[in-house]
Amino acid sequence: MHRHFDEKLDELRARLMHMGGVAESMVEKAVRSLQERSEGRHAGIFEDEKEVNALHIEIDERAIQLLALQHPVAADLRLVVMCSKIGGELERIGDQAVNICENTVELLKYPPLKPLIDIPLMADLARKMLRESLDAFVRQDAALAQQVLDSDDPVDAFKDQIFRELLTYMMSDPGTIPRALSLILISRSLERVGDHATNIAEETIYAAQGRDVRHHHGEPGRGES
Amino acid sequence: MHRHFDEKLDELRARLMHMGGVAESMVEKAVRSLQERSEGRHAGIFEDEKEVNALHIEIDERAIQLLALQHPVAADLRLVVMCSKIGGELERIGDQAVNICENTVELLKYPPLKPLIDIPLMADLARKMLRESLDAFVRQDAALAQQVLDSDDPVDAFKDQIFRELLTYMMSDPGTIPRALSLILISRSLERVGDHATNIAEETIYAAQGRDVRHHHGEPGRGES
Repeated sequence: MHRHFDEKLDELRARLMHMGGVAESMVEKAVRSLQERSEGRHAGIFEDEKEVNALHIEIDERAIQLLALQHPVAADLRLVVMCSKIGGELERIGDQAVNICENTVELLKYPPLKPLIDIPLMADLARKMLRESLDAFVRQDAALAQQVLDSDDPVDAFKDQIFRELLTYMMSDPGTIPRALSLILISRSLERVGDHATNIAEETIYAAQGRDVRHHHGEPGRGES
Repeated sequence: MHRHFDEKLDELRARLMHMGGVAESMVEKAVRSLQERSEGRHAGIFEDEKEVNALHIEIDERAIQLLALQHPVAADLRLVVMCSKIGGELERIGDQAVNICENTVELLKYPPLKPLIDIPLMADLARKMLRESLDAFVRQDAALAQQVLDSDDPVDAFKDQIFRELLTYMMSDPGTIPRALSLILISRSLERVGDHATNIAEETIYAAQGRDVRHHHGEPGRGES
């Protein structure tokens, strides 16, 4: 019975990691299509979104089946519940990639406003957070998860810097407003990718240690419960 | 044993409904403070946020305990897992209320841009969606949950209308840009409140019918699984 549980849990985790890979590649494709000003890349993202949505349902079903048939307790129980929560985070990351595409379509109606520098850097950082949060979950590595939590401030700093710069453009030339707005919304989507990675890291620490770091950044944990 | 489960489930649901009430009142306070241009109302929201965050942790703990000690199956199992997911949605609604406050603080640095009409209406609609999604969950009322799913389009229509109107202001007078941006971001926060209510409604239909309507709007369900 226990070996069966481990096998099923490994399958669940493997599907979750596959979903994480698809979600990350969606963000990468969306930002590349923005950088290269190429709408052609979008079709792939809508296919990916369908896959991510199907995986979201599949992962919830697998988690429910595991709970119903195997009655895991303690750390195993937390792990299964966290798989389901992380599936929800990944699905929302896919939604953000789609939002970036939609704003890119708006942007491509106009000539480039400025060379893009901060947005690709911010995207790299958000994707790195996502990758590391999933690595931390798979390896049950609370230290790596903590590192992801610490990366959230630089992402927010990028968001503020992008906002201030684009505000300057808009104020000095109203003709830039629609493009600047699209870029601001894209930076907000990337911020949210970082937020979801942060949630995955928090859930990892919770699953790994039975310690809830959500809403407790920097405070001592509550210990095993 | 089963009576014990029912009692514990009732407690969990009652705490979730309490959390829903706090989250809804946060949105209401945030929008009222925007309408009345009164920063004084904000203090209450930061207290509320602490309560919502504590409830989020408490609800997850209660759900995990229920799963660990009672091993519910079938509909009961889905209900417990959904309580945990809905707690996550409510916590994010609280975050949106805080975002609205932060943008209101920005707005109050300037004289009013225009009388607010659409934003309060949009807020009423989003709060109604939230209330109805929680009612639907408590009563396991899939028809009411479906009604919530159908309300999402009017919220999106408000968002687009607000965006277009504020764009006109910004283009004709760059001095309005910072205020218009704050109002656009507030409307995005309200859109997200509506999105979270939609998620709660989808989770309700899933818990009530074992049918996953997520990513399937309008398509026939997959039947009991």
